[in-house]
Amino acid sequence: MRAVDLIRQKRDGGALDAGAIKAFVDGATDGSWPDYQVSALLMAIVLRGMSLDEAIALTEAMVGSGQRLDLSEFGGTPVDKHSTGGVGDQTSLILAPLAAACGVVVPMMSGRGLGHTGGTLDKLEAIPGFRTNLTLAEMRRVLRQTGCVLIGQTDEIAPADRKLYALRDVTATVESRPLICASILSKKIAEGIGGLVLDVKVGRGAFMKTRDDARALASWLIRIAEGNGVRTEALLTSMDAPLGRAVGNASEVIEAIETLKGQGPKDLEELSVALAARLLILAGTAKDDADAERQVRDALTSGAGLEKFRDVILAQGGDPRVVDDYARMPIADTEIIWPADRDGVVANLDAELIGRATVALGAGRDRTDAAIDPGVGIHVEATVGTPVKRGDAVLRLRCDDRQRVAAARDLLAEAIVIGDTAPALSPVIVERMDVAAAMRMEG
Amino acid sequence: MRAVDLIRQKRDGGALDAGAIKAFVDGATDGSWPDYQVSALLMAIVLRGMSLDEAIALTEAMVGSGQRLDLSEFGGTPVDKHSTGGVGDQTSLILAPLAAACGVVVPMMSGRGLGHTGGTLDKLEAIPGFRTNLTLAEMRRVLRQTGCVLIGQTDEIAPADRKLYALRDVTATVESRPLICASILSKKIAEGIGGLVLDVKVGRGAFMKTRDDARALASWLIRIAEGNGVRTEALLTSMDAPLGRAVGNASEVIEAIETLKGQGPKDLEELSVALAARLLILAGTAKDDADAERQVRDALTSGAGLEKFRDVILAQGGDPRVVDDYARMPIADTEIIWPADRDGVVANLDAELIGRATVALGAGRDRTDAAIDPGVGIHVEATVGTPVKRGDAVLRLRCDDRQRVAAARDLLAEAIVIGDTAPALSPVIVERMDVAAAMRMEG
Repeated sequence: MRAVDLIRQKRDGGALDAGAIKAFVDGATDGSWPDYQVSALLMAIVLRGMSLDEAIALTEAMVGSGQRLDLSEFGGTPVDKHSTGGVGDQTSLILAPLAAACGVVVPMMSGRGLGHTGGTLDKLEAIPGFRTNLTLAEMRRVLRQTGCVLIGQTDEIAPADRKLYALRDVTATVESRPLICASILSKKIAEGIGGLVLDVKVGRGAFMKTRDDARALASWLIRIAEGNGVRTEALLTSMDAPLGRAVGNASEVIEAIETLKGQGPKDLEELSVALAARLLILAGTAKDDADAERQVRDALTSGAGLEKFRDVILAQGGDPRVVDDYARMPIADTEIIWPADRDGVVANLDAELIGRATVALGAGRDRTDAAIDPGVGIHVEATVGTPVKRGDAVLRLRCDDRQRVAAARDLLAEAIVIGDTAPALSPVIVERMDVAAAMRMEG
Repeated sequence: MRAVDLIRQKRDGGALDAGAIKAFVDGATDGSWPDYQVSALLMAIVLRGMSLDEAIALTEAMVGSGQRLDLSEFGGTPVDKHSTGGVGDQTSLILAPLAAACGVVVPMMSGRGLGHTGGTLDKLEAIPGFRTNLTLAEMRRVLRQTGCVLIGQTDEIAPADRKLYALRDVTATVESRPLICASILSKKIAEGIGGLVLDVKVGRGAFMKTRDDARALASWLIRIAEGNGVRTEALLTSMDAPLGRAVGNASEVIEAIETLKGQGPKDLEELSVALAARLLILAGTAKDDADAERQVRDALTSGAGLEKFRDVILAQGGDPRVVDDYARMPIADTEIIWPADRDGVVANLDAELIGRATVALGAGRDRTDAAIDPGVGIHVEATVGTPVKRGDAVLRLRCDDRQRVAAARDLLAEAIVIGDTAPALSPVIVERMDVAAAMRMEG
């Protein structure tokens, strides 16, 4: 079937079969479909949608555009976690070492920050020497040494996703549930995992603003991943205010290490432990939920998770002394206190605005090729619900560039609300969804 | 505004203002918008639609992508006709000389056949030596000599349309009312006309199968052209069976000459005279409808129209002796009679299937770069409503290639229906629509 006929079929609201979808993905990847036909079909998909079966086939075709790694040499069921993107969310740096310390294989492939959310690769690269761009051979070596690895996407993994994402970004075809799901999952599935836990953020600082939207996305992600042979479940988690207290790359690495030392913010610890426990369940190395949680807690309190993180840093070329000496991390010299402008209670710390302010300080990028400053960041001194007096520190900023600080000010002024009474706090973990729950969802 | 933002706006169902539409058209024409962004926006337009105001702005921008000719040196109001595409429809070759013989300036720019419909350029090029690819200077010379000219689109006229049409053809974005209207009208408006009559075909052999669809298209075409300063009206005309009796390029030229001699099929003569009369009204050279029709009839019966066609052939490099000696036209040697397979009355001669059969014989093209054979064709011996005996000729085919004849057989077998009683015949002209009628239409 010719490309134009497939485009017409989707344009008219029809479903594409697996063969047609594979022809599209292969054609986009090898260039035999010109970009103008690829983008026309992408727009038709955005506006006409795809059925779940089509999304499963799309994901499978995107996985098939490159290698699907065989990690059987490591034994057991390799597992990974994916987050839909939050602010101050460095759970990956905590849960991967914790799960690996419990004997689970975690081949974690992550992305960079874009928009107001941070990215695991940017955080890791704040550690002097840490390399995220490993070859597949290096990845296997690190996995063999430590049981976990934290890297970026390689050329061999889902090349169709890189091609399609670059085109979607410039043709306003990003916002499509089937395209979003296939992009996320094709990379994870190609890693060779057998289990996946999803951290689907919901709230003011998340891409999904409502619980219904988050549940709909989670159910699709679960069913598509399961349709490609990966056991998957999701935690829906709050993202109204930043997770933990640190936002910014080096700051978040330090907070992750503090958490692995048992000294981290309670919300960050709770979520990291919960996600790690789900990895043990999916890997089949825990008897039940209670056993999984107990194993992870033991790895935390014994310091085994911290030692595992030190091993990973060393194996990936980083300076492991940062674990004991935070001064070895790049932190901006200039500290600015953001005071409360009245007496009251911290009623809101808008995660999206704080994320955008951190990007304005230089921690993130508004273009994929922009450079970032690992040493800038924002630390929350008074979390939501904390009583404050006028002049008390609400935030502490780190940034040496006064112009960048000026650019962040308006965002922060809007982000912080001091009220008269403490607001109701939402739990960190809103809901857990497994494949059975996903199947019960409509559409 | 960036291209991606304009695409997003249309994707989300918003309207684009005239500046945005001009940026799109100019960007597509000069290549500063890459094809993948152009095609993404085209698909968004197909699926989200455009308002009438947007379509007017799109047409204006496409006209503005090239020259809008100034024909004021010729005096009066230059006029043209456009047909939405029929089978056996050579009215252009008849009405342009007739109107010019009445003193009206007719700078007619036509297209080639595509799909099952014929094209005026292909028909004219069946005349030995006839050149349709004139330069603008040559076009003005012919207009000065004869008052009418019959040519193809030049590089200076609406280059955006050529660019967009080529992309639409391969991205399944042809079928969109605003895009279709802008494509048709941008070329006509750029010719420098002040009046336009539309022949909107409706029926089995037309792109518009129902009268409602035809009326909707006609009302948009009228309002967009009027919005660009061109007085416009439409005739809705029947296209169930082929118009006249000849289908095929040289055959249709001969039938046009016969009609200019007063010996043509009545339906073809009636429609050609009616369209020519509307041109006189739009040019302002007739007192009223009756006067317009009388002037055109006089040009027909006096032979002035025939002489004008002879002049045009000569001025455009063709052999004017074809007017008196049809043997100078290329006609295939082999004649095949298609007989009635039973006694009865011709109940149907499906125009689309006969059009496709004629293309199969070699008269048309299924790709824009395919060559055609001017000498093949189909002549209707027994029109709809004619009583026939088994074995009587219904059609006469001309084609020297037996394989092509074989390819046409199945189409013709399906196209011809011999019934027991004569069907009700629809009038050639179904309805006339002016701008007031168009304004009364919804949407």
